[in-house]
Amino acid sequence: MIDPLSRWAAHGEKPDYAGLLSFSGLPYSEDPADLHGVDAAIVGAPMDDLVSDRPGARFGPRAIRAASCPPGPHLEAGVDAFEILEVIDFGDAPVLPADPERSHAAIEATVGQVLAAGAIPIVLGGDHSIAEPDVRACAAKHGPVGLIHFDTHTDTGRTVFGVERSHGTPMYRLVESGHVDPTRYVQIGLRGYWPGEQEFGWQRERGITSLFMHDVRDRGIKAVVADAVAAAAGPDGSRPVFLSVDVDVLDPAFAPGTGTPEPGGMTSADLLWACRTVAAEVELVGMDVVEVLPERIGSRDVTALVAERIVRETLTGVAMRRLATSAPTG
Amino acid sequence: MIDPLSRWAAHGEKPDYAGLLSFSGLPYSEDPADLHGVDAAIVGAPMDDLVSDRPGARFGPRAIRAASCPPGPHLEAGVDAFEILEVIDFGDAPVLPADPERSHAAIEATVGQVLAAGAIPIVLGGDHSIAEPDVRACAAKHGPVGLIHFDTHTDTGRTVFGVERSHGTPMYRLVESGHVDPTRYVQIGLRGYWPGEQEFGWQRERGITSLFMHDVRDRGIKAVVADAVAAAAGPDGSRPVFLSVDVDVLDPAFAPGTGTPEPGGMTSADLLWACRTVAAEVELVGMDVVEVLPERIGSRDVTALVAERIVRETLTGVAMRRLATSAPTG
Amino acid sequence: MIDPLSRWAAHGEKPDYAGLLSFSGLPYSEDPADLHGVDAAIVGAPMDDLVSDRPGARFGPRAIRAASCPPGPHLEAGVDAFEILEVIDFGDAPVLPADPERSHAAIEATVGQVLAAGAIPIVLGGDHSIAEPDVRACAAKHGPVGLIHFDTHTDTGRTVFGVERSHGTPMYRLVESGHVDPTRYVQIGLRGYWPGEQEFGWQRERGITSLFMHDVRDRGIKAVVADAVAAAAGPDGSRPVFLSVDVDVLDPAFAPGTGTPEPGGMTSADLLWACRTVAAEVELVGMDVVEVLPERIGSRDVTALVAERIVRETLTGVAMRRLATSAPTG
Amino acid sequence: MIDPLSRWAAHGEKPDYAGLLSFSGLPYSEDPADLHGVDAAIVGAPMDDLVSDRPGARFGPRAIRAASCPPGPHLEAGVDAFEILEVIDFGDAPVLPADPERSHAAIEATVGQVLAAGAIPIVLGGDHSIAEPDVRACAAKHGPVGLIHFDTHTDTGRTVFGVERSHGTPMYRLVESGHVDPTRYVQIGLRGYWPGEQEFGWQRERGITSLFMHDVRDRGIKAVVADAVAAAAGPDGSRPVFLSVDVDVLDPAFAPGTGTPEPGGMTSADLLWACRTVAAEVELVGMDVVEVLPERIGSRDVTALVAERIVRETLTGVAMRRLATSAPTG
Amino acid sequence: MIDPLSRWAAHGEKPDYAGLLSFSGLPYSEDPADLHGVDAAIVGAPMDDLVSDRPGARFGPRAIRAASCPPGPHLEAGVDAFEILEVIDFGDAPVLPADPERSHAAIEATVGQVLAAGAIPIVLGGDHSIAEPDVRACAAKHGPVGLIHFDTHTDTGRTVFGVERSHGTPMYRLVESGHVDPTRYVQIGLRGYWPGEQEFGWQRERGITSLFMHDVRDRGIKAVVADAVAAAAGPDGSRPVFLSVDVDVLDPAFAPGTGTPEPGGMTSADLLWACRTVAAEVELVGMDVVEVLPERIGSRDVTALVAERIVRETLTGVAMRRLATSAPTG
Amino acid sequence: MIDPLSRWAAHGEKPDYAGLLSFSGLPYSEDPADLHGVDAAIVGAPMDDLVSDRPGARFGPRAIRAASCPPGPHLEAGVDAFEILEVIDFGDAPVLPADPERSHAAIEATVGQVLAAGAIPIVLGGDHSIAEPDVRACAAKHGPVGLIHFDTHTDTGRTVFGVERSHGTPMYRLVESGHVDPTRYVQIGLRGYWPGEQEFGWQRERGITSLFMHDVRDRGIKAVVADAVAAAAGPDGSRPVFLSVDVDVLDPAFAPGTGTPEPGGMTSADLLWACRTVAAEVELVGMDVVEVLPERIGSRDVTALVAERIVRETLTGVAMRRLATSAPTG
Repeated sequence: MIDPLSRWAAHGEKPDYAGLLSFSGLPYSEDPADLHGVDAAIVGAPMDDLVSDRPGARFGPRAIRAASCPPGPHLEAGVDAFEILEVIDFGDAPVLPADPERSHAAIEATVGQVLAAGAIPIVLGGDHSIAEPDVRACAAKHGPVGLIHFDTHTDTGRTVFGVERSHGTPMYRLVESGHVDPTRYVQIGLRGYWPGEQEFGWQRERGITSLFMHDVRDRGIKAVVADAVAAAAGPDGSRPVFLSVDVDVLDPAFAPGTGTPEPGGMTSADLLWACRTVAAEVELVGMDVVEVLPERIGSRDVTALVAERIVRETLTGVAMRRLATSAPTG
Repeated sequence: MIDPLSRWAAHGEKPDYAGLLSFSGLPYSEDPADLHGVDAAIVGAPMDDLVSDRPGARFGPRAIRAASCPPGPHLEAGVDAFEILEVIDFGDAPVLPADPERSHAAIEATVGQVLAAGAIPIVLGGDHSIAEPDVRACAAKHGPVGLIHFDTHTDTGRTVFGVERSHGTPMYRLVESGHVDPTRYVQIGLRGYWPGEQEFGWQRERGITSLFMHDVRDRGIKAVVADAVAAAAGPDGSRPVFLSVDVDVLDPAFAPGTGTPEPGGMTSADLLWACRTVAAEVELVGMDVVEVLPERIGSRDVTALVAERIVRETLTGVAMRRLATSAPTG
Repeated sequence: MIDPLSRWAAHGEKPDYAGLLSFSGLPYSEDPADLHGVDAAIVGAPMDDLVSDRPGARFGPRAIRAASCPPGPHLEAGVDAFEILEVIDFGDAPVLPADPERSHAAIEATVGQVLAAGAIPIVLGGDHSIAEPDVRACAAKHGPVGLIHFDTHTDTGRTVFGVERSHGTPMYRLVESGHVDPTRYVQIGLRGYWPGEQEFGWQRERGITSLFMHDVRDRGIKAVVADAVAAAAGPDGSRPVFLSVDVDVLDPAFAPGTGTPEPGGMTSADLLWACRTVAAEVELVGMDVVEVLPERIGSRDVTALVAERIVRETLTGVAMRRLATSAPTG
Repeated sequence: MIDPLSRWAAHGEKPDYAGLLSFSGLPYSEDPADLHGVDAAIVGAPMDDLVSDRPGARFGPRAIRAASCPPGPHLEAGVDAFEILEVIDFGDAPVLPADPERSHAAIEATVGQVLAAGAIPIVLGGDHSIAEPDVRACAAKHGPVGLIHFDTHTDTGRTVFGVERSHGTPMYRLVESGHVDPTRYVQIGLRGYWPGEQEFGWQRERGITSLFMHDVRDRGIKAVVADAVAAAAGPDGSRPVFLSVDVDVLDPAFAPGTGTPEPGGMTSADLLWACRTVAAEVELVGMDVVEVLPERIGSRDVTALVAERIVRETLTGVAMRRLATSAPTG
Repeated sequence: MIDPLSRWAAHGEKPDYAGLLSFSGLPYSEDPADLHGVDAAIVGAPMDDLVSDRPGARFGPRAIRAASCPPGPHLEAGVDAFEILEVIDFGDAPVLPADPERSHAAIEATVGQVLAAGAIPIVLGGDHSIAEPDVRACAAKHGPVGLIHFDTHTDTGRTVFGVERSHGTPMYRLVESGHVDPTRYVQIGLRGYWPGEQEFGWQRERGITSLFMHDVRDRGIKAVVADAVAAAAGPDGSRPVFLSVDVDVLDPAFAPGTGTPEPGGMTSADLLWACRTVAAEVELVGMDVVEVLPERIGSRDVTALVAERIVRETLTGVAMRRLATSAPTG
Repeated sequence: MIDPLSRWAAHGEKPDYAGLLSFSGLPYSEDPADLHGVDAAIVGAPMDDLVSDRPGARFGPRAIRAASCPPGPHLEAGVDAFEILEVIDFGDAPVLPADPERSHAAIEATVGQVLAAGAIPIVLGGDHSIAEPDVRACAAKHGPVGLIHFDTHTDTGRTVFGVERSHGTPMYRLVESGHVDPTRYVQIGLRGYWPGEQEFGWQRERGITSLFMHDVRDRGIKAVVADAVAAAAGPDGSRPVFLSVDVDVLDPAFAPGTGTPEPGGMTSADLLWACRTVAAEVELVGMDVVEVLPERIGSRDVTALVAERIVRETLTGVAMRRLATSAPTG
């Protein structure tokens, strides 16, 4: 384990552009032994072999890390997640270019190591096909998970161009394989021109909840998130939930660097609030943020930047829940 | 006529980055005979000789096509325009560089071919001067048209830098020539620092309706569009209307690639909804989307992307109206 | 003094891309004698030596000028600031690369020349450390100023990485040195993860008002600005106020070219309205707009563009107040 | 078949940015019947699923077409290839995203259609894995081909990251499968740090000729090309030869938009001369140009631009040879 | 007249990114009276209305100035042009957007003012059509000029797309109008696919000298320039010569930001040497550098940067000649 | 110490875009104990506070690492440096933003740790001011060093804008302080317009050797490097030499991302050969590569890419010398 701050120990923080590249300057390790006692671990999943349009998400994990800012208290929530939680950067899963099957296996194994240590995996994609190994690993530990899924697209195709394992099919496969409980699966932000009746028909049969972008527009993000939390957490509010965020749920103004952008999307302010709130209100067992196709260095890449903040907001929510849970009553 | 899908016939769609470059993968023809039976036809007008600031809109039509996504049902409206309507890509008007007069003539003639076949022309600009040939051709067929005009600027200058035929003057010229009925002409999204009292005075005299960006902010897009539809469609709601969309009506965050951007503008969500609604509620006889200055390839160019969606939303609205009109009563 | 319009005298305006590069095509002079009778003067402060993350704001003043549009009436306010006010571009302060102390001295002296002539200095940064010489010069003339400060960050660090003179510390230093009256100091737009309890504790002790981005979200920009104006203008509403705008208060969608961007920020529409309103409602003695890191030419750089409009909205507000004040009563 | 020039018939050429997007404005068809009587046909192969580093070559064919300039006589050679040869743009092979096997099959079939009509296929990649279907189709018609291969890398890996079908292995596979005659296989421009002794040992065993970048530097392009022609054309100088050009053979200054760039490479002037000369001096049965990862629109993308010229120089060479062969003897 | 250095007087130079934007920080004036005693004057000609492909050269003059470095001795030539010569920046000609005729008139008048004062005009384009007013003004004073013309293209079309006044026709028009002496007109760097036999036939008839890029490659820049100087300067070596440099003579690696780039071109090292040498060896009466389409700020735009150096090398050559001429004999 | 390859152990290499970001995928450590037995260590020096024009080199070390390709044998030299030499990535020196003095101290200390372990420091800049701490540390161990310095500029100013510690002064300071032996100090690639007679006069007095870009052009890189080696290595050829490479010695075509680019420079092919040859022929005690201002991700940034190769060529040269020295005689 290397602590990037140690060389700057006298100053309490290091410049974001200097030192070891790890998420938010967190300690970095590739050794499962270092996961002991950790609450959450960052895992990169740099693969994009299964996209239907523009590739490039393989550069996502590195760019998201490079867009990090230093830890500190969330100014609205008043919580510094990195003080409450023990978090490390566990590096990237050993993916292999042009070999999506072995890459998925590598991702599932790496995420599994994090879960085995009792930590929450935070996976940086990568194309959305990685949701499949991410969620499979979580369900292997926790049983069928609820899923809160921010996205323009449902990703519930049976095939895309005849291909079964695709960034357009993971949610179909996870439901069919039993890893996701469809009655606790909520999609938020759907818009545009895909998919069609076949997929929505299947979704209705399975009991999946679809919240469209026009729901967000008409009802507001707070109402929509409240519905999502209620559905995903189950009747008693305590069931395990996975959070999967495709940055294309954002309008291209806020996240231009993505493979299948769709105008008319969410604002960053809404999405960041939503991620924090979801994490504070459900039993989060894992998350991923996907489809970041970066082009620039550091915080100059606005898509990598907002993806980094999506993770931090989520960790802030986890920390808020931790504080709330551990607070003495009476 | 070439159908780009035919090589991918077994799959029902083709990848957006592959195959013949046509709008949304539609059949492509330059032969007027192929317009027979068509409801709407895409026409490119790649000229930008008449701008007052940054040129580059000549690359707009190609870039808008390259930002296309495959057909499918509109997730909010529940309508797949390309199933309801017969639409083709009729290619570009034979413009000539550095010769705006002959280019305008070419555009007018090409749009005229579409109209002669009974189809709605959808013109991809190009600078806003193309509204002049676009609307002239429509008025030649339908008589003076109503005009719903989304823009930061009124484009009703008498001259710009002493030049009469300019991207800042088409609306003045169309009103004065009688092709646009000023009492049914509505501008939406005006802001910034142009024009001045002379132009607004003339507008008031003519009975033109100006809806500013602060009207959108204060009253909301729904109220503003309702007013526009009422004014443009005429007393009986059935008069022919042309829709002209300058992408600079959007805030530069949503459409950075335009020649005279102005901060403080509309969101994509509002504009896309507005175009669909206008098309669903008036008798649309033609449209253009202008001032797209692209720089990137494919959907990476967010301005070309949103322009593509402006067209699709409009076609969706036309399809909605078609369905509503043809629905059996009681 | 050179009037860039004179070569285009027959046309009343010049193309933005041609002629001498001055703010909005204003007369340009580096001679203090030309400040006589001037109401406001543009001053560039092209330094960025004191940043903690990405540098590049030294190119801000030139880029902001290059993004100018011609003068004209503000379409919402109905006022042409450049007709009401005498404004010139006074050029850049003679900063020196790699020598922040002498650069600050040069900025303070140049701003002082503007103030000595009775004009309002409008300073184009530069990193936010320039607020220190900007405000010092204003306070030297007007006494301790109120401060309305749009920013993601408070910039009230005591040191940043152990450095006292930094773009993260000017407001602390100005309060401690007595140039800013903390009870009339209002921050708007705070969000993200900095600073921490130490700084906020000091702020509370001093009586500084912090309005967060979630206040803007929950209460609306109008309520927030009303509070700010009330606090900054003092009990009798007439005390001198400085306006300092860090473009990173905007969401990165609206201002991607800045050194420490933070998602979840303000829209351009809100900020532009706010700047105009503040200027119309307080006794403005100076302003700066900072942290613009441009990359493109002309209005193609959306961050430089919105910074230019921030200045114009502010000047519009000053002109509105001038008109209101000078209006005959009864 | 659509002739993009027909709308501009009165002018003899069309603007490059207007009209149907076809290579150099050539007639476009997807119908094999239109290949009758054609000398050469452009085929796009927009796939990049098999790369080991940066993807994006799927956008290559479209960008290469968009960088076209109008036909005309080659100023050094004095030959207008498009007057001597009948050339059409046969569109793209129906590749499928995320399915390299079916994409290879589609490419092989489409190239085969061109060959069946007696035309030379000119394939626009796409990643270098497409050389496998390209050459297989040619060898199916002409028997084992000689191969002149411009590249930084040998592309003769057995596997890359354990993957057999890769952009780093096509030449190994083509030699082993007998489609390329290794004694007539010449590599030009090798440099950098790959491959190692295993691959070079195999190459020596097979009798493959390797000409390094330091050979070009020390001996000059003319000597190197002379050697290559002699080796590839076989003892009697008339054996069929395939030309495969990876744009990364160029220095990144000349072709920055490629997936595995390597500094210290060839100049455009040398490569363009070389391609023309090879085509003029061997019996060319096919060519491909690969690994173009474009980012910009039109000729603004210098990598797409030079790739377009590589094709034109090659066609010019073919035309030169045609003229020389058909010239009446004394 | 404003001397940008005066605010930095204590330091002898100013940072390139600060202060008034003038060429190389030279004194700036728009007043013809200030031309008195001046040896050379910079004139911007920001128009691009007459291009056949990509526009954008209207931003050239500003970008070339912004890429300036401070004056100093040329390290090879040992001469500081700005110490030997009196040079000022005379600003831009008052061009008008979308009105090429009046823009040409404005350019001719402004260049004429420089010539009337006895100074050499150095014109920053703009598209190459500006050579027409540039040379006309020079010939009006000096009689028919010799012309050394660096370019990929001959620019001797009779029309381009039927347009007579174009960036592809100025040299034809200048020869036919008698402003250029065709026997002293030398083209250097021709390559690519334009023009054809008609134009070259006319050139031969007129006695124009064409030196191709393959001449540079085969014979070297020194021999080519020697031929050009001999031809242009006339039998006695003292005839007036105009130097016209289209940056597309460079390979796109060295000048990517141009409207009709052509791979296989000159290196910067060759062109810079050539411009200096031409200026040192002929009686230069004027120059222009054209077709710079910038995109970036400052020296980050490599095309604007090399254009700036083309001017400085030329001025260095003029200074060398001045020194050589004025040196005392024996 | 973390070995990024370990997760990919089964494959012998990892994708460049995945895994821990270290130079060329080398083991990474910040612990001086891990320097034991190491031949060379990479050290980042991410500071750019002392530049006179464009900043941004603080992002250089990270970008150079991100442009790495996997280890392998140098195809011309036949040597895999990483097999011959033990090399690690020792991370970045703990620089502090806006505090150049403490940053220099941190760099000197970190480089000193490498030297103390008997390894060669390879420093990735950062602006060229870092040569001062780099060389001071080397001279502290080895005594006054010879210096081979590739650069457009001499960097021997006494001050730059009155500032003594600058990226334009390190070589003056190092000579004056005795850390560089001026008689063994050779500059290669000088061109442009700086410095002037004062600096060159001082250089001559000190016996510094200046080899200009025109020397490279006229005499060839081999002759120039031979002279440099002879001078720097001292009479017996064995004196310690430091190699300092400013990437602006390259033409902007090859290295556009640098702060003070100068057209007319070296090619990558020449510079890479030169660095390898110098390292193979002198007793190298340290090197730095500076002034890389990256903008893109990975090998897409051609300047970072060529800087990475400059390091690898140098290491290859060191390995060649090691092999040559250790080869059995007789």
